[in-house]
Amino acid sequence: MNRKMVFRIFGRIAALEGLLLLFPAVVSLIYGEFRAMWSFIAVAAGAALAGFLLMRFIKPNNSLIYAKEGFATVAVVWIGMSVIGALPFVISGEIPDFVDALFETVSGFTTTGASLLRDVESLGKGMLFWRSFTHWLGGMGVLVFIMAIANNISDRTIHIMRAEMPGPVVGKLVPKVKDTAKILYLIYIALTVLEMIFLLIGGMTPFESAVHSFGTAGTGGFGIKADSIGGYSPYIQWVITVFMLLFGINFNLYYLILIRRFRAAFSGKELWVYFGIYAAATAIIAANIYPIYSSVGETLRQAAFTTASIVTTTGYSISDFNIWPQLSRGVIFILLFFGGCAGSTAGGLKISRIMLLFKLIRREFRKLLRPRSVSSVNVDSKPVEEETLSSVSNYFALYILTIGITFLLICFEPFGIESNLSAAISCVNNVGPGFGIVGPMGGYADYSAFSKIVLTFAMLLGRLEIYPMIIAVAPATWMSKRA
Amino acid sequence: MNRKMVFRIFGRIAALEGLLLLFPAVVSLIYGEFRAMWSFIAVAAGAALAGFLLMRFIKPNNSLIYAKEGFATVAVVWIGMSVIGALPFVISGEIPDFVDALFETVSGFTTTGASLLRDVESLGKGMLFWRSFTHWLGGMGVLVFIMAIANNISDRTIHIMRAEMPGPVVGKLVPKVKDTAKILYLIYIALTVLEMIFLLIGGMTPFESAVHSFGTAGTGGFGIKADSIGGYSPYIQWVITVFMLLFGINFNLYYLILIRRFRAAFSGKELWVYFGIYAAATAIIAANIYPIYSSVGETLRQAAFTTASIVTTTGYSISDFNIWPQLSRGVIFILLFFGGCAGSTAGGLKISRIMLLFKLIRREFRKLLRPRSVSSVNVDSKPVEEETLSSVSNYFALYILTIGITFLLICFEPFGIESNLSAAISCVNNVGPGFGIVGPMGGYADYSAFSKIVLTFAMLLGRLEIYPMIIAVAPATWMSKRA
Repeated sequence: MNRKMVFRIFGRIAALEGLLLLFPAVVSLIYGEFRAMWSFIAVAAGAALAGFLLMRFIKPNNSLIYAKEGFATVAVVWIGMSVIGALPFVISGEIPDFVDALFETVSGFTTTGASLLRDVESLGKGMLFWRSFTHWLGGMGVLVFIMAIANNISDRTIHIMRAEMPGPVVGKLVPKVKDTAKILYLIYIALTVLEMIFLLIGGMTPFESAVHSFGTAGTGGFGIKADSIGGYSPYIQWVITVFMLLFGINFNLYYLILIRRFRAAFSGKELWVYFGIYAAATAIIAANIYPIYSSVGETLRQAAFTTASIVTTTGYSISDFNIWPQLSRGVIFILLFFGGCAGSTAGGLKISRIMLLFKLIRREFRKLLRPRSVSSVNVDSKPVEEETLSSVSNYFALYILTIGITFLLICFEPFGIESNLSAAISCVNNVGPGFGIVGPMGGYADYSAFSKIVLTFAMLLGRLEIYPMIIAVAPATWMSKRA
Repeated sequence: MNRKMVFRIFGRIAALEGLLLLFPAVVSLIYGEFRAMWSFIAVAAGAALAGFLLMRFIKPNNSLIYAKEGFATVAVVWIGMSVIGALPFVISGEIPDFVDALFETVSGFTTTGASLLRDVESLGKGMLFWRSFTHWLGGMGVLVFIMAIANNISDRTIHIMRAEMPGPVVGKLVPKVKDTAKILYLIYIALTVLEMIFLLIGGMTPFESAVHSFGTAGTGGFGIKADSIGGYSPYIQWVITVFMLLFGINFNLYYLILIRRFRAAFSGKELWVYFGIYAAATAIIAANIYPIYSSVGETLRQAAFTTASIVTTTGYSISDFNIWPQLSRGVIFILLFFGGCAGSTAGGLKISRIMLLFKLIRREFRKLLRPRSVSSVNVDSKPVEEETLSSVSNYFALYILTIGITFLLICFEPFGIESNLSAAISCVNNVGPGFGIVGPMGGYADYSAFSKIVLTFAMLLGRLEIYPMIIAVAPATWMSKRA
């Protein structure tokens, strides 16, 4: 285990986070929130100093990064940057309890959007900005960001990228990892700016358009109002619906469009299954809630927004789906598991993984009926390695196990199976809202400190797809002496 | 597809069921329930005649049974015998609606024990006997029974046994399928009689001891009182607790004890994991419910009974665990998935399958950390074939999918996620009770006819481990001309 390399990379991230904390400091300055501003500046300075010291004094014997170092790095970085990111909330006194602040920050970085603020509107502008900015940073991944901007990046760092980016298979768009990371971030920035422009046109202030674009881009879901997006105009709600869906698409597609390979861009089946699931769920929910809203336009907007929000694991809401009829609630409950396409910023299982599971099940039937036949599983007409297939179905078992254990650990809470189970599912899938007390109009404020820590860990497990976090907390990882 | 052979075997089962229906007819006679008696006799005669005609006039060109025929036979037989078994309820007028009667009969044969009777105590003795008798028949499997008693059984019928018996791997105890089936049934009968004796000693009437032994042996759970086993003495409750656990053990163990291979009998890890899970769950629940019952003895009995009932998927209850504290409810909710050991009469996932899933997950970690390493998964020190491993994890995905679809199909119902989800889980795992309206003191009476049909199918899917039912309803199965 190349421990020194892990902490050296963390040093770099800490320094970067110090820099990034100056953005909310500026926002606080603009809005005259000086206590918040100094909190940001103090933490920024501390993080930058800590990062500088780590980089200066930790000298790895070599810069080799294998799978294990990749996983450990990602876990250490995500935990470390969450701790740093939580400090301004605590120091400024806006979220005085550290466990609460950490929950909120992890919820931000993991793009979950689960909140335990009882009154989000009482938070200062700087803090609201930082909260949403963590969504944006966590969406594409901070380590991917470092790779995009750092100079001395070896191609071994694909292990880090693989561990941080969601989905069953992480590939490179272009031969160099650095260039791939840069392209991904440029697309990400461009789409975010595009959404901001559309929101500004709809009458949002620059501040509002920024935080909501961050929340959409990362498929996070932190808002700045008690009713989330419910108070904004239908135009705004439609813009956010469209962008939630766009950020749930594999970013490869945008790259292929950029290099004008249109046919390749739209040939992948995952995209169409994603839209198919979205359309079907929207139709069912619309038919089911029509009696509540009675106007076709209103019904469609409600169904389209909510389905997009859940299927992309964003978690914004424009109405309390917790009180919708059972059929809609049931569909939403199932959608909590889905997530968007692999290679997007969405959480959840990912459509491509679900498609592979279906194909594996189909093959199982074939095998049962013709025991001696051998058949491969294809994705987009290319056979998938058996190794990848078994890792997908084993990941699924681990994922269900993770949800089960999370649920068990929080069922000390007196809130009933519906609330606790949907909280566990929602946090592991990085969605945010659930049902019962954690419904869109509720929140995680009433959970005990113990449960908040459990759910914080669950959000990290979900965002990093479980393995890195477990590997990082296993003592054996740190004991081994290789390299 | 050797269709003729499938229907010929069904003919045999129909004739057998005709014979077996004479038992409840005798019970009805004893208790002077003449209308019920004639219903049983009429259906018995009809079934025997239909069976005779099927066997007489359907002449297969050959008696070859491959995997496909095995699955189709099991599915056809289970659907067919459930339809026949439902008729006495309808004809006697005791459960006049056919959908209701079919639900109740399938719940019986699949050893689920989910009931939609609003007042079970108003049912006649003959009907109560038949209801519980279906548990006993379904527990070990009717086709296994046929194999045990028929003379012209070829060893190809292992395909039928494999399709009907639960668990990831079905082996033969002795070289001949017929002998294996006979040994299993003899052990089953012996244990059932033993329980009857213990219950008679506790003061139950012969009728009561028979129906409750049937319900325990099949891990079914149909009782004859509104409060299930709640009204019986602590002695009776402890006897049933012990026997539920005994019927959740792999029957191989009893066979190994019989042939005095004690070391082999107790060397399997599944047994100890089963007891370990049982002990842990009982301890957690006991600690959690102690404040309600305040006496140690009462608390232990409540926890031991309920945990045994759920973990073995029996479904008897002695108190309303639906109103227990959330921690106990959460543990019970998770236990709904477990099931007993493979090769027992319990439903659910089975402990050995869960153990394999854990081992697969552990191997996945090893693979991630050392991509080039190759390692096998062992069960009781013997390596398991890769084919079996992948079929276990794919089965798990299919199983979760089945629960999800069942839940979606019944979420038209206005009962909330807790009730509907636990109903789906409970039916697929053949447990019986769930939470909310389907709690131990509730039932499935308020579900619509559509949902009842969905849940009926779900119980069959669960009992036969999904594949046979799907293969049997796929038109392609019946089209193919092989053999």
